[in-house]
Amino acid sequence: MQTQVGIIGAGPAGLMLSHLLHLQGIESIILETKSQAQVESRIRAGVLEQGTVDLLKSTGIGERMMKEGFVHEGIVIQFNGKRHRLNFKELTGGKEIMVYSQHEVVKDLLEARLNAGGKVLFEVKDVSLHQIETNSPVIRFMHEGELQELHCDFIAGCDGFHGPSRQAIPVTIRQEKQEIYPFGWLGILAKTPPANNELIYATHERGFALLSTRTPEIQRYYLQVDPNDSISDWSDERIWEELQLRVETNDGWKLEEGPIIQKSIVSMRSFVCETMQYGRLFLAGDAAHIVPPTGAKGLNLAIGDVQVLAEGLKQFYRNASDRLLGDYSEICLKRIWKAQRFSKLMTELLHRNKEHSPFEYSIQLADLDYITSSRAAAESLAENYVGLPVQFPKYELV
Amino acid sequence: MQTQVGIIGAGPAGLMLSHLLHLQGIESIILETKSQAQVESRIRAGVLEQGTVDLLKSTGIGERMMKEGFVHEGIVIQFNGKRHRLNFKELTGGKEIMVYSQHEVVKDLLEARLNAGGKVLFEVKDVSLHQIETNSPVIRFMHEGELQELHCDFIAGCDGFHGPSRQAIPVTIRQEKQEIYPFGWLGILAKTPPANNELIYATHERGFALLSTRTPEIQRYYLQVDPNDSISDWSDERIWEELQLRVETNDGWKLEEGPIIQKSIVSMRSFVCETMQYGRLFLAGDAAHIVPPTGAKGLNLAIGDVQVLAEGLKQFYRNASDRLLGDYSEICLKRIWKAQRFSKLMTELLHRNKEHSPFEYSIQLADLDYITSSRAAAESLAENYVGLPVQFPKYELV
Repeated sequence: MQTQVGIIGAGPAGLMLSHLLHLQGIESIILETKSQAQVESRIRAGVLEQGTVDLLKSTGIGERMMKEGFVHEGIVIQFNGKRHRLNFKELTGGKEIMVYSQHEVVKDLLEARLNAGGKVLFEVKDVSLHQIETNSPVIRFMHEGELQELHCDFIAGCDGFHGPSRQAIPVTIRQEKQEIYPFGWLGILAKTPPANNELIYATHERGFALLSTRTPEIQRYYLQVDPNDSISDWSDERIWEELQLRVETNDGWKLEEGPIIQKSIVSMRSFVCETMQYGRLFLAGDAAHIVPPTGAKGLNLAIGDVQVLAEGLKQFYRNASDRLLGDYSEICLKRIWKAQRFSKLMTELLHRNKEHSPFEYSIQLADLDYITSSRAAAESLAENYVGLPVQFPKYELV
Repeated sequence: MQTQVGIIGAGPAGLMLSHLLHLQGIESIILETKSQAQVESRIRAGVLEQGTVDLLKSTGIGERMMKEGFVHEGIVIQFNGKRHRLNFKELTGGKEIMVYSQHEVVKDLLEARLNAGGKVLFEVKDVSLHQIETNSPVIRFMHEGELQELHCDFIAGCDGFHGPSRQAIPVTIRQEKQEIYPFGWLGILAKTPPANNELIYATHERGFALLSTRTPEIQRYYLQVDPNDSISDWSDERIWEELQLRVETNDGWKLEEGPIIQKSIVSMRSFVCETMQYGRLFLAGDAAHIVPPTGAKGLNLAIGDVQVLAEGLKQFYRNASDRLLGDYSEICLKRIWKAQRFSKLMTELLHRNKEHSPFEYSIQLADLDYITSSRAAAESLAENYVGLPVQFPKYELV
């Protein structure tokens, strides 16, 4: 089997890359270990930055999102029982966010790829990468009971945190940096009307809570819990009781409850792999970096990576220039570290850390007080939340 | 001995309070353990916020400062060998800072008080506070070999971190919050021309360095050192060598050296005492709070405190209203916590913490990259550096 770009992983990074390459007339094949149904139902993030929305629209993927997604012009931050709205649209000179689930983006991308004759092999097994230091790397994998080889010019490792791509970079070349937070997120889907027309980030002595949304009928709520808690520790009654305590306001606002149709606990981690490229292998998305969900950056960073990679590959095939590909890691990491910074800051701003001293807790409250009372601080939070731009280098792209 | 307001401590807080009260026709007596010469030569901070400058000018104390002080419209932040100027005047809509030493402010205030017949008792000993829960508190002290009593309506504890005032608040009432940093500052005075026309905050893998100034002939430079280092560890040669390494730029800029005429090491701490008032005792300045010097906030917070206190006492004597006095601690603490927040942030932004992980160091560099590339972030730093306003409550002051 042969193609120009072999893509490992049919998540948002892999699918978007394949789509962008197709628009430039560059061939790719995607290999995915899961089934199509599994890929289309992986519940993940739900907040798209302005830049992600713009890219989906400008590349013809935005139609259903524009109908079914929800534009939010701001968020609400709650502390000491009081709510403070941050009007992103006004603070950033017109930028907004879109609440539209990651698995819906995946469905839209997959449909577009398949309609355009794109090749996606599902349920592959035993994926391994070979000859990545050469100009003709190879991906080996099992598919429908047979050992296969995909020969290509480049490999895009879009296979998430646990995939084989990152491991293919020698340990002497890559440096992995990370931080594990002492927080977990218990996420639920509940059948109940929206709590608010915008997301509410509530911090409380007992811990953080986030009231997000999915549809007019189904809401996505989160509670900060101990990352070692198991789901059996959290009965539906306990979840509602804890949510109510954390989101109640001084003027008596109560959250409307409803049946919980899904619940799970995730741990929180920051992770960056430096470098993101080795030989003819390029990492994108979770394969190279993980952010805690508090900043809503995961999906958006993945989309940013493949924007740069697709442009680099275009420069290579169209103009025989490998300069942009050579700078891929550096360009992406500059933006990724700023997003890591923001994600860590939002996480520490909003979660209750039991290990913190009374001094540190007072500083946290002062941070919240400052951010909700200073125009400059609110603008800074807003520009990061709606997304810092992907910055291409200043040399001329041909 | 009797007065309306008994003030313990002839530092900037005590002297400015006495001055402000005098302008309102309220009597005070200042008690100070040191001699006048010692008070006038205590080397401390040197950066005055716009609000401090305005207050000194509007109350008739600013004449020498306006002649001998240096207006700075911004600062320089250096990292990775590159300098980034923050233009405060432009970022804040016209605000500046003034480089004028704290001991010069003290001289000016003291001269004004003494010229106006103000009473300052120097070299007092064994100061103790009594009956502070009553309407007629008493300060006992030894002066010129005799035990004295100062009877007053109010006591202002402006006696610094180690003074007796804070200790007079029962331990069950006050909560002390603090953080000790693993950093020390080695400060020198050197006979050499200014390194730059504005302060340079340089961060480097080896640690932080600050190039400040005093006069056209004498400069004030600082090096981050281990707080347990002693001065004998730091020969003049070692100091210059280390300074050069930390402040050199990629384009080869070198610091001009000269004779070192003074050197000392200070440790760095954040400290807040909640509450700042008890009965008829009010704490102001370092007696209630300490900031690390990185944010240049110490003196300015003290001046902010006594502005509120003077206004409260005016309301009391002129209108028999104790409402503002009752809110003194709350009003001051709101501003103090924001300054603590900023001072901690600047400290962590600029110092090299050996205990930090590679992830945390990368986040620190991303913070620096973000602050020097985002208008909103630069505005936020600038508004804090030039000083957040003293915010009086919204109820009408009569």
